[in-house]
Amino acid sequence: MTGEEMHALVARLYPLCRSITGDGVRQTLEIVGEHLPLDVHEVPTGTQVLDWTVPREWNIRDAYIKDPSGARVVDFRRSNLHVVGYSVPVSATMTLDELRPHLHTLPGQPDLVPYRTSYYAETWGFCLSQRVLDGLGAGPYEVVIDATLADGHLTYAEHVVRGRSDEEVLISCHVCHPSLANDNLAGIAVATALAARLDSTRLTYRFLFAPGTIGAVTWLARNRERTGRIVAGLTLACAGDPGALTYKRSRRGDAGIDRVMAHVLADRPHTIVDFSPYGYDERQYCSPGFDLPVGSLTRTPYAGYPEYHTSGDDPGFVTPGALAGTLEALGEAVTVLERDGRYQNLSPYGEPQLGRRGLYGSLGGRSDTKQAQLAMLWVLNQSDGEHSLLDVAERSGLPFAAVAEAAAALEGAGLLKRVGSADEPAGR
Amino acid sequence: MTGEEMHALVARLYPLCRSITGDGVRQTLEIVGEHLPLDVHEVPTGTQVLDWTVPREWNIRDAYIKDPSGARVVDFRRSNLHVVGYSVPVSATMTLDELRPHLHTLPGQPDLVPYRTSYYAETWGFCLSQRVLDGLGAGPYEVVIDATLADGHLTYAEHVVRGRSDEEVLISCHVCHPSLANDNLAGIAVATALAARLDSTRLTYRFLFAPGTIGAVTWLARNRERTGRIVAGLTLACAGDPGALTYKRSRRGDAGIDRVMAHVLADRPHTIVDFSPYGYDERQYCSPGFDLPVGSLTRTPYAGYPEYHTSGDDPGFVTPGALAGTLEALGEAVTVLERDGRYQNLSPYGEPQLGRRGLYGSLGGRSDTKQAQLAMLWVLNQSDGEHSLLDVAERSGLPFAAVAEAAAALEGAGLLKRVGSADEPAGR
Amino acid sequence: MTGEEMHALVARLYPLCRSITGDGVRQTLEIVGEHLPLDVHEVPTGTQVLDWTVPREWNIRDAYIKDPSGARVVDFRRSNLHVVGYSVPVSATMTLDELRPHLHTLPGQPDLVPYRTSYYAETWGFCLSQRVLDGLGAGPYEVVIDATLADGHLTYAEHVVRGRSDEEVLISCHVCHPSLANDNLAGIAVATALAARLDSTRLTYRFLFAPGTIGAVTWLARNRERTGRIVAGLTLACAGDPGALTYKRSRRGDAGIDRVMAHVLADRPHTIVDFSPYGYDERQYCSPGFDLPVGSLTRTPYAGYPEYHTSGDDPGFVTPGALAGTLEALGEAVTVLERDGRYQNLSPYGEPQLGRRGLYGSLGGRSDTKQAQLAMLWVLNQSDGEHSLLDVAERSGLPFAAVAEAAAALEGAGLLKRVGSADEPAGR
Repeated sequence: MTGEEMHALVARLYPLCRSITGDGVRQTLEIVGEHLPLDVHEVPTGTQVLDWTVPREWNIRDAYIKDPSGARVVDFRRSNLHVVGYSVPVSATMTLDELRPHLHTLPGQPDLVPYRTSYYAETWGFCLSQRVLDGLGAGPYEVVIDATLADGHLTYAEHVVRGRSDEEVLISCHVCHPSLANDNLAGIAVATALAARLDSTRLTYRFLFAPGTIGAVTWLARNRERTGRIVAGLTLACAGDPGALTYKRSRRGDAGIDRVMAHVLADRPHTIVDFSPYGYDERQYCSPGFDLPVGSLTRTPYAGYPEYHTSGDDPGFVTPGALAGTLEALGEAVTVLERDGRYQNLSPYGEPQLGRRGLYGSLGGRSDTKQAQLAMLWVLNQSDGEHSLLDVAERSGLPFAAVAEAAAALEGAGLLKRVGSADEPAGR
Repeated sequence: MTGEEMHALVARLYPLCRSITGDGVRQTLEIVGEHLPLDVHEVPTGTQVLDWTVPREWNIRDAYIKDPSGARVVDFRRSNLHVVGYSVPVSATMTLDELRPHLHTLPGQPDLVPYRTSYYAETWGFCLSQRVLDGLGAGPYEVVIDATLADGHLTYAEHVVRGRSDEEVLISCHVCHPSLANDNLAGIAVATALAARLDSTRLTYRFLFAPGTIGAVTWLARNRERTGRIVAGLTLACAGDPGALTYKRSRRGDAGIDRVMAHVLADRPHTIVDFSPYGYDERQYCSPGFDLPVGSLTRTPYAGYPEYHTSGDDPGFVTPGALAGTLEALGEAVTVLERDGRYQNLSPYGEPQLGRRGLYGSLGGRSDTKQAQLAMLWVLNQSDGEHSLLDVAERSGLPFAAVAEAAAALEGAGLLKRVGSADEPAGR
Repeated sequence: MTGEEMHALVARLYPLCRSITGDGVRQTLEIVGEHLPLDVHEVPTGTQVLDWTVPREWNIRDAYIKDPSGARVVDFRRSNLHVVGYSVPVSATMTLDELRPHLHTLPGQPDLVPYRTSYYAETWGFCLSQRVLDGLGAGPYEVVIDATLADGHLTYAEHVVRGRSDEEVLISCHVCHPSLANDNLAGIAVATALAARLDSTRLTYRFLFAPGTIGAVTWLARNRERTGRIVAGLTLACAGDPGALTYKRSRRGDAGIDRVMAHVLADRPHTIVDFSPYGYDERQYCSPGFDLPVGSLTRTPYAGYPEYHTSGDDPGFVTPGALAGTLEALGEAVTVLERDGRYQNLSPYGEPQLGRRGLYGSLGGRSDTKQAQLAMLWVLNQSDGEHSLLDVAERSGLPFAAVAEAAAALEGAGLLKRVGSADEPAGR
């Protein structure tokens, strides 16, 4: 998928009213399913998942505030952000003063509508711009939220690219936000694009599309044993804004994925930040009981841009180029994950004579030694069974690809052999 | 005690002629004893203490240099700095030229009188300003030091705040300097104030008021076994000048006290320096045989200000505000020492649902999450039995108090329990 | 040897036509042998050495390109750089176009002749300045290389300074470059000067004069067991140019020699770079099978100056002062290697009373404590059997010599004893 195709997917998913349960999620997964075969899971309300309980399912048909003239001054049909997520049904006539405790605005950003939810406390509310609120008269207003909160299911989906190894890489993105483009339709689009192009891999790649928090908690509850196979992972969000890439380290801080991402991002404008137990579902994957090697990739991070969790996060805020750039970085990370490994130099005493094996230029004295030859010397020197190709790339400052190609050439010449299990994670 | 009260204590102690033994020390401890119950120890001359021997006791009644007109041009009654500490008695008539080898001045600070001692080599001398020396005629001079150097005792005192644990925190200050206010009456005053306000502590706090070097050596010799209980300690000196706080690390460099002080000072103008075997009695506590976790807290450090070891170090050099600031930092250090500990998250798989326990705001989507909630997430995430609350505070950048309060709230909700011995030191 | 004497040695060796084998190497070793007794080794062609085979011996008598007028436009007798090292014999008449594939120039440095070799691929060629090439007509030219490539020997030499310990320090320099002064006649001269002044050492010092790569490989093949005794080593090259000293760390990165050189260079303009498997024979010594604690000392490093591997690297490029500076730094490194060690404080509880042992000034209160006294306090404090004198010098910031003298004084006073084997390497 090109940047434009990913952007088109974002735009198509944008109008759907997603929440942590309900038909908006199902419709979203159906559309993603046009690009990828998905295993869709439906988990009944009331199911105990770790410390949580799957909540009732929420669906909404319509909602509005009508002024005395009958005009919809706040209208769910114009933007699903106008309703506080998981609002209970309401149908009442109220003055503005009675209504006010149920109205949420952003006084500092008076033209934008905020995004608010109330999943676990029964209440209802509307979100609107401060500008609109300031224009409202005393009322009375007709207030309607035509929603249902009833036993049903929590929905999530997986797409698995089976590799030669059981070891898994987890790519997780949340699918519970309504009309917010960067957070997280961009992440969904990039994950979809990455999944679509993986084939014949060494590692197994599991893509998880699930509602935030409760979805990750549910998946973890149902896949406890599988978590032991996860050798690397990323939560993917805010993947399409124009800012530089940001990698947030796993709780471990020195997991393979942390080193892989640092290496991949080194050549790009980027920021690396330490783990914190706030943000996306790395909160769950990195809880101390699991402590998985899962970091988080975003462009501008969580809460780091003024459009965050407002109506300003629309498809215009996301660019094809940024989506493509995120995908490209992920692709390079996959390359490292796939090709990294530890090797043993089979001729470790002195340098082997590369020249007679056709691996080395024959004319000596020149100082413009080529990268490929340097890469071979580095791989030979460091391949004592302890250092991985990523180690070599980091120590030498050479691109990982050059190091991996050198290793392949040396292995082909019988000078090198891979050690350790074939499926050990990159950066270990 | 307020800054003003500490300053008044400094001023009251200032005129006494302290040395490493003698009545000046006893009078000093008597005055401190008005604020705190003290155990005063008297150790006889000749007692072997580690590699040292308790010296003879020195007491002085009067000393002067009289010029031919009978005027006291140098007069012990005006300042006890005028006599070299531990001078042997003398009564003689001498020309200026004969006297000169016994006179000490500071040519670079011509108005100040230096502080000099000669504890372990029998000699005598006078200290005076270069200005006075320059005005002296050829003599002859009547030279008198009415002192005794005789078998007696070395005097030191302890005040102990018994905690629930046997583990001890040692606060040590030297009491051997005559009329020098910052070095170390300020340290004595701050230690007294800290001791006076400690009550119902977890750890035991031992305050030691002892002459420098020989006092610390004597205490160590008599308390060898007790040193094993010391989990943290500080020598306290130069505690009242206007400079920023300075913490000098213990020899270990990564002892709990080193981390505690770094955390406490982080919010204040401060300097942290590595250990060196020069300065105050940390020299003895951090000798390799003991290697105690004892650092040193000062404001401007040892020998770091022009008034150091001169008559310029008078009560005017010490301010109530600086004394209060040192006490406040020490108080925070005690808070960390008291409250730090390692905890185990009892719901470590995924985040526990804080909302249903009333520990979390119910309205989602907002990005201005409060410090208290962040602190709970951090404590839950890091509480794997390995990380202490101080670790959490350092990693999260949150104030220690916020972290400790979060831990208390989570413990109250049954989500957390303390691990390890209750008396393990902070920062371990 | 003074800087001038080393420079004279460089100038005397300069005209000889050295290569990896042949009479130029033998003549070079003969001249070095006038300063030092050398063990000269001759290893027959065809000998298997690690992954390599000793090549045929190459000797050259004359070589030239004569233009149609009979003038030698390129003449080996003017500079041995004019012939590609290991050229096979040739005697032919060729047009400039036919000759051109065999001509090597530096278009970017049109007045300089490059240095080229072709040890392991049979070919021939001439090196000349671009300026001369540009002036050549169409020809025909008489082209002669009067050389022999025949079974013979590879030649290298050793000089050993036997110490009281079997542990060895290896100083290795390559002797295979023809008329190149800095690379590496300067290294040969400095090694010779260092060897000449070593006497009654604790460690054994082995100086190796061998052709690059194949010489080091040959020595390693014939001394595999001896390599276990090498506790420190340096390859020495580019030792006479006016640039600052550069130390390249061993593959280990934290070997004793790495710390010793960092300490010695700290007081001088210098650069320290990490190991890379390119440069001089550290490539062989630091191959993963050997992984010896061998770094590399140069002034301007490998390929770091425009004259590198060109006719510009002549004796005028090397200065007596630079040669002397390199020798001085090496001398200090030897001092550390000789005198470093771990000690045990025999009076580790508190400070021992230095005053009664005459090791400490008797007048207290002064803040201008002398370096010698500080050094004693540091040595006493750190001597717990774990820290070496180099550790003490690094931690205290005092010169190594002051620390070593303090240790000697304390040992003399019975306060300190050396621990560990007498021959353990510096910096361990």
